Amino acid sequence: MEGVDYLGDERKKAVFDVEAMKIVWAGSRHAFEVSDRIAKLVANDPGFRKDGRTMLPRKELFKNTLRKAAYAWKRIIELRLSEEEASKLRVYVDEPAYTDLHWGMFVPAIKGQGTDEQQAKWLPLAYKMQIIGCYAQTELGHGSNVQGLETTATFDPHTDEFVIHSPTLTSSKWWPGGLGKVSTHAIVYARLITDGKDHGIHGFIVQLRSLEDHSSLPGITVADIGMKFGNGAYNTMDNGVLRFDHVRIPRNQMLMRVSQVTREGKYKQSDVPRQLVYGTMVYVRQTIVADASSALSRAVCIATRYSAVRRQFGSQNGGPETQVIDYKTQQSRLFPLLASAYAFRFVGEWLKWLYTDVTQRLQANDFSTLPEAHACTAGLKSLTTSATADGIEECRKLCGGHGYLCSSGLPELFAVYVPACTYEGDNTVLLLQVARFLIKTVSQLGTGKQMVGTTAYMGRMEHLMQCRCDVQRAEDWLKPSQVIEAFEARAARMSVSCARNLSKFANPEEGFAELSADLVEAAVAHCQLIVVSKFIEKLQQDIPGEGVKQQLEVLCGVYYLFLVHKHQGDFLSTSYLTPKQAALANDQLRALYSKVRPNAIALVDAFNYTDHYLGSILGRYDGNVYPKLYEAAWKDPLNESVIPDGYHEYVRPLLKQQLHTAKL
Amino acid sequence: MEGVDYLGDERKKAVFDVEAMKIVWAGSRHAFEVSDRIAKLVANDPGFRKDGRTMLPRKELFKNTLRKAAYAWKRIIELRLSEEEASKLRVYVDEPAYTDLHWGMFVPAIKGQGTDEQQAKWLPLAYKMQIIGCYAQTELGHGSNVQGLETTATFDPHTDEFVIHSPTLTSSKWWPGGLGKVSTHAIVYARLITDGKDHGIHGFIVQLRSLEDHSSLPGITVADIGMKFGNGAYNTMDNGVLRFDHVRIPRNQMLMRVSQVTREGKYKQSDVPRQLVYGTMVYVRQTIVADASSALSRAVCIATRYSAVRRQFGSQNGGPETQVIDYKTQQSRLFPLLASAYAFRFVGEWLKWLYTDVTQRLQANDFSTLPEAHACTAGLKSLTTSATADGIEECRKLCGGHGYLCSSGLPELFAVYVPACTYEGDNTVLLLQVARFLIKTVSQLGTGKQMVGTTAYMGRMEHLMQCRCDVQRAEDWLKPSQVIEAFEARAARMSVSCARNLSKFANPEEGFAELSADLVEAAVAHCQLIVVSKFIEKLQQDIPGEGVKQQLEVLCGVYYLFLVHKHQGDFLSTSYLTPKQAALANDQLRALYSKVRPNAIALVDAFNYTDHYLGSILGRYDGNVYPKLYEAAWKDPLNESVIPDGYHEYVRPLLKQQLHTAKL
Ligand SMILES: Cc1cc2nc3c(=O)[nH]c(=O)nc-3n(C[C@H](O)[C@H](O)[C@H](O)COP(=O)(O)OP(=O)(O)OC[C@H]3O[C@@H](n4cnc5c(N)ncnc54)[C@H](O)[C@@H]3O)c2cc1C
Ligand SMILES: Cc1cc2nc3c(=O)[nH]c(=O)nc-3n(C[C@H](O)[C@H](O)[C@H](O)COP(=O)(O)OP(=O)(O)OC[C@H]3O[C@@H](n4cnc5c(N)ncnc54)[C@H](O)[C@@H]3O)c2cc1C
Repeated sequence: MEGVDYLGDERKKAVFDVEAMKIVWAGSRHAFEVSDRIAKLVANDPGFRKDGRTMLPRKELFKNTLRKAAYAWKRIIELRLSEEEASKLRVYVDEPAYTDLHWGMFVPAIKGQGTDEQQAKWLPLAYKMQIIGCYAQTELGHGSNVQGLETTATFDPHTDEFVIHSPTLTSSKWWPGGLGKVSTHAIVYARLITDGKDHGIHGFIVQLRSLEDHSSLPGITVADIGMKFGNGAYNTMDNGVLRFDHVRIPRNQMLMRVSQVTREGKYKQSDVPRQLVYGTMVYVRQTIVADASSALSRAVCIATRYSAVRRQFGSQNGGPETQVIDYKTQQSRLFPLLASAYAFRFVGEWLKWLYTDVTQRLQANDFSTLPEAHACTAGLKSLTTSATADGIEECRKLCGGHGYLCSSGLPELFAVYVPACTYEGDNTVLLLQVARFLIKTVSQLGTGKQMVGTTAYMGRMEHLMQCRCDVQRAEDWLKPSQVIEAFEARAARMSVSCARNLSKFANPEEGFAELSADLVEAAVAHCQLIVVSKFIEKLQQDIPGEGVKQQLEVLCGVYYLFLVHKHQGDFLSTSYLTPKQAALANDQLRALYSKVRPNAIALVDAFNYTDHYLGSILGRYDGNVYPKLYEAAWKDPLNESVIPDGYHEYVRPLLKQQLHTAKL
Repeated sequence: MEGVDYLGDERKKAVFDVEAMKIVWAGSRHAFEVSDRIAKLVANDPGFRKDGRTMLPRKELFKNTLRKAAYAWKRIIELRLSEEEASKLRVYVDEPAYTDLHWGMFVPAIKGQGTDEQQAKWLPLAYKMQIIGCYAQTELGHGSNVQGLETTATFDPHTDEFVIHSPTLTSSKWWPGGLGKVSTHAIVYARLITDGKDHGIHGFIVQLRSLEDHSSLPGITVADIGMKFGNGAYNTMDNGVLRFDHVRIPRNQMLMRVSQVTREGKYKQSDVPRQLVYGTMVYVRQTIVADASSALSRAVCIATRYSAVRRQFGSQNGGPETQVIDYKTQQSRLFPLLASAYAFRFVGEWLKWLYTDVTQRLQANDFSTLPEAHACTAGLKSLTTSATADGIEECRKLCGGHGYLCSSGLPELFAVYVPACTYEGDNTVLLLQVARFLIKTVSQLGTGKQMVGTTAYMGRMEHLMQCRCDVQRAEDWLKPSQVIEAFEARAARMSVSCARNLSKFANPEEGFAELSADLVEAAVAHCQLIVVSKFIEKLQQDIPGEGVKQQLEVLCGVYYLFLVHKHQGDFLSTSYLTPKQAALANDQLRALYSKVRPNAIALVDAFNYTDHYLGSILGRYDGNVYPKLYEAAWKDPLNESVIPDGYHEYVRPLLKQQLHTAKL
C-alpha cells in the first residue's frame, strides 16, 4: 500500500507550478528551505511522534510534553540550530509547551522592558534555559482590564525590597502558561506602591521555585488550573494559578527600562518613551496573524484533500460517485477558507514589514504612525483569529461524520486554536479599540491632519461618500481598482454613519457604549479592507512561476467576492451597490470556484505540510484514508479487550435482570 | 459560603413572574412538575455525579458510563418510573450512552418497520433490556448516501437464511452508537439480494454478541472507532465498527412491515405504505429540534449568569467595575441566542403537534401533507442545530478566558453537541432537500395546486413579489403582521429568483447543482420564516403569569430583528426594505436589548436547570464563581504533587545543562 497516491490525478489537473507556489507561501526560497528541512527532520524523528496524544490522560500527556520539550532542546543544541531554525523546530513539534512562553513572552518582556543591566543578568540564564520563565499578568478577576489587576508590589525602603502580595482571592494569577508546573521564574504584573502611593501596573521578575529541587519558594502557592477544551490540545500546557503571601524580591527585579524606583523609594520615568510597549504588541500580534494563516491552512488542507477522496451520491450506471469537492455547496464553504488562508498569509507578511517600519520610526522618535499601526494590528488579530477559529470548525463539518473523530486531526486543531480569539486581547475588546481609532480619525477629517497608512483612504472621503459602483457585467468584478473602491466606500460610509449617530448623543461615551455593536461592524469593514488591499498589492508584485500569479488572482477574487456576498447588506445599505451588482458579484464568485476546483489539491500541497505536522488521517498526502482510519480505530484503549471493563459488573447483571443485587 | 446568592439583586430586577415562565418553557404544568422532580432526583443522587468526567481517561470514563447506565435502569425499575419519567431521567443523567440508541433508534426501528409478529417477539426483550440494540446504518464509505451502502444480505433459499456480508473495507459499519462494546443486537441496513437481484437497502435484526459471555459471534468483527471530539463529551459512547464475514440469520429477521421475502425467495411489497418511514423521520427530527433548544439554553444560561457576575473596566471613583452583561456588544451577541433558545423551544413544540397531525393523516391514508412536513422538519433540524452549535461556542467566547476551562462546562457542551449538525442528515444535504421542495412548490404555482401548511404563503405570491415594507418608525417593527410579511416576502422572492435562474439552464439538474449555494440560502430564509411565524403564533395564545407574555414579545422581537439585521442583504437585495428601514430595525433591536437586560437572569432561571445538569462553575445558580473555580483547579491529577511527574527526567537535566546524558 505504501507508494499509493489516490490524489495523483488531482495533482495532474493543476495548471500552475506548485513548487513555485511553495516559495510564495513560505515567503522566500530561504524560508522555504529552512521550513522544509526542519519539518522533515521533526517528522522523521520518532522522538517527536504525536499520534497517540489525544488518548493520553492528563498526567501522561503532560509528562510526555516535558520529554518532548527537553528532547527538542537537546536536538537544537546538538544540531547547533540557528534561532530561526530552532523556532521552526518548535513550530513543527506542534505541541504547546512551557517553552512557548519562555521564548515568546518571558524573554521578549525582559528584552523590551528590562534595563541594560537587567538584560545582561537575566538573558544569558534564559537563553541557556538555566531558568525557565513565564508571563504572569492575568488574574482570576482581571484579564482584559489590565489596569484593574490587584496583585501588589509594595516597596519596603528598610530592606530595599518589593513585597509581592495577593490581597484577595480574585488577585490570584490565573492562566499564565508554563506557570503551573514548570517555570522557575515569572514576570509578574502588579500594582507598584511606594510610600502609600499607587503607581499602576508594572512588571517584576520573581523567582517561584527552587532551582535545586523545584519546590515552590516560601510564600508562594502555585498549581495547574485544570483541564481545558479538547483532548490533547492545550492540555499539554500547564496554565497555572499563583498566589503570593508577602514574597520579597530585591528592588532591582522590577523591570526598569521605562520607569524606576530609586533606593529611596522615589518613582520616576526614564527618558525611554512609554510607546515602546506598543512596539512589542505590534510584534506579538503580527505573529498571531501569521499563526492564523498556518492553523487555517492546515484545516483547509485536510478538508480539501478529504473532499477529493470522499465520494457520495451521483453514481451513474454503476460508475464512481461524485467527489464531494465537486458539489457547489462544498466549494462555497471550502474555497473561501482556502482563499482566506492565503489572504492571511500575505497580510501577515505585510505586518512583519509594518513592525520593522514602526520600530525604525520609534528609534527615530517618530510616533506618528503608532496609533494607526496599533489599531491595524489589533483589528487584524481579531479578524484573522475569529475567521480562523470558525473556519477550522467549518472544515471539520465539511468532512461529515469522520471529521468528528480525533484521528481526523480537526477537533484538536480547533480546541488548541480557539483561545487565540481570547488571549492577547479579547477579539471584541480589540475591535472596540479599532472603532475608537476610526471615530477619532473621522473627527479629524478636514482639520488638515494627514491620514496615514491604512487610513489614507479616509483622505478621499468626499469621493468615497458619493461614488457609485460601476460594475455592469460579472467580469467587471475582477478589476482591482473597482474592488478597492467598493471596500473603501463601505468602510468609510460605515465609519461616517457611526460618527453621525454618535454626534446625536450629548455624552460621547454614552453614545459609544450604546452604539458599540454598530461600531464593531464598522471596525470589521475597515479590517477587511486592509486584508483585501494587501492581497491586491501583493499581486502587483512580480511573482515567478508558471500560472502562479493567475492562481493567486483567482484566490484573491474568491476572497473579496465572498466578502461582498457575505456582507452584501453593508454594501447595499450604504447604497454603494445595487442589488443587480451584488448578484453579479455572486455570479463571478461561482465562476471563480470552477477555476479553483482543478487546482484545489495543488493549492493545499503548496503549504508543504508533512503528514506528521498535519496530524490527520483524512488529510493524508496520499489520500489513503479508509484503510488508515480502520487501522487507527484499533489503537483505542477501549479495544484492548473485546469485552469491555465493566461488563461483568454493569452490563451482564442488566441483561440478566439481576440489577437489584448489583453494586452500582 | 453556602446560601450566598450573588445574583439576588439581578433576580429582583425581573418584571415578570418567573414561576409562570417556567411552566411556559416546560410546555405545561405537568411537564414542569415531572422535569423538576426528576432533575432534582438525579442532582441529589451521588450515583449520578459527573464533575470529574472531563479528567477521566477513556477506559475509566467508559466504565463509569456503564455503571451509570445500569444504575439509572435500576432506579427506573425501583421507582417504577413511567416512560415519560424514565426518559426525563436519562436526559438529566446527561451522559451519552448505549441506552440512547437502544431506546431512541433500535426500539423505534422495530416498532416502525417490524411486522406484528416481529414486534411481539423482539419488543418485550428490548423493553426489559434482555437484549441491547443499536442502529447500524452508516458505513466507512457511505453516510449521507444511504442508497449507496455496500453491506449485502443475500437470501439463501436452501437454508431459509440471509447471509450478511461486508464485501469491502468501506462496507464496514462505522459510527453506530452502542455498537463498539455493548450492543448484543443491531438493526443492520444492507442491500437485499434475492436470486441475484438487488432490491436496495433493507433493515435486518442481527445478533452480534453472545448473551452468555458477550463474546462476538462467529463471522463478526466489532470494535470501538476511537476517540472523538472533546474531553468526556461523546467519548462515553462506544461508536463502533462492524464487519460481517458471511453471517447467517433466519429469514424472519428481516424487518418485513413494508416489504417481504417469501420462503421461496420472492420479494414483495406489503400494502403498508412506504411513506410510513417518513413519519418516523419527522418524529426523530422533532426531538432533535427540542434538543437544540435544550443545549442552546444551557449555554445561554451559563453565559448570561457569568456575564452578570463578571466585571471588567469602567470602575468610577473606586466603585465596582461594569458587569460585562451591560456592554452592548455583549448583549448583541448574547441576547439573540437567549431569544433563539426560546424560539427553538416553541417551534419544537409545534413540530410535536405536526408529528401527531401527520401520523393521524397517514393512518387515514392521507399523504398530502407529507412532503411539506418532511421538508419542514429537515429544514428546521438543519437550522436549529447549526445555530445551536455556533451559539454554544459564542457563549463560550462570551465568557472570556474562563470559558476555555472544562470547569466552565462549555467545551464539553460544544463537543457533545456539534455532531447533531451531521447525524440524522448532514445539515447542508438537508437544506438542499428543502430547496428542492421549494423549487417544486414554486413550479406548481398557478397550476391550481393548493399550497399547504408552511408553504401557504406561496399562495399569495403575487402580493409578496410586489409589496414594500411599510415601516416608518422603529416601533413599526413591533407589528407582527409587518414582520411576517417581511419574512414571507424575503423567502418567496429568494425562491422565485432561484427558480428563474434555474430556468436558464437547459438541464435542470445541472442548474440545480450550479446554483446550489444560492438554493441553500433560499431554504434558510424559508426555515427562518417558519420559526418566526411559530413564535408569533405562540404569542397569539393566552399566556398566563404577570408580565410573561410581554417578556416573550420582547424576545420574539429580538429574534426576528436580529435576523433582519444579520440578513439585511437578503431583505435589501430583494428590494423589500429600504436602507432606512433596515436601520430602523437595528434601532428597535437595540431598544429591545435594554428591555431584556433587567430580565436576563430571570429569563435563564426559567429554564429551571439544576447546577448538576448545567455542569458549569461559571453558570452556578448562586453566582459564586471565583472561589469554586479556584477550588476546582486543585482536583486536576497534575496537582497531586507540587513537583510534576517527569521533573527529574526532563526538567532538571535541562535546567542543569545535563541533557546530553539524559535518556529522552
Ligand atoms: C489558553 C490561554 C492561555 C493564556 N495564557 C496567558 C498567559 O500566558 N499569561 C497571562 O497573563 N494570561 C494568559 N491568558 C489570559 C488571557 O490573556 C485572558 O483570558 C484574556 O486577556 C481575556 O481576558 P478575560 O479572560 O478577562 O476576558 P473578559 O474580559 O472577562 O471577557 C469576558 C467577556 O466580556 C467582554 N468584555 C470585557 N471587557 C469589555 C468591554 N470593555 N467592552 C465590551 N465587552 C467587554 C469580552 O468581550 C468577553 O465577551 C491565557 C488565556 C487562555 C485562554
Ligand atoms: C457522533 C455520531 C454518531 C452517529 N451515530 C450513528 C448511529 O448510531 N448509526 C448510524 O448508522 N450512523 C451514525 N452516525 C453517522 C452519521 O449518520 C453520518 O455521519 C451522517 O449521516 C453524515 O454522513 P457522512 O459522514 O457520510 O457525511 P458525508 O456525506 O461524507 O459529508 C461530507 C461532506 O459532503 C457533503 N455532501 C455529501 N453529499 C452531498 C450532496 N449530495 N450535495 C452536496 N454536498 C454533499 C456534506 O455536506 C459534507 O460537507 C453517527 C455520526 C456521528 C458523528
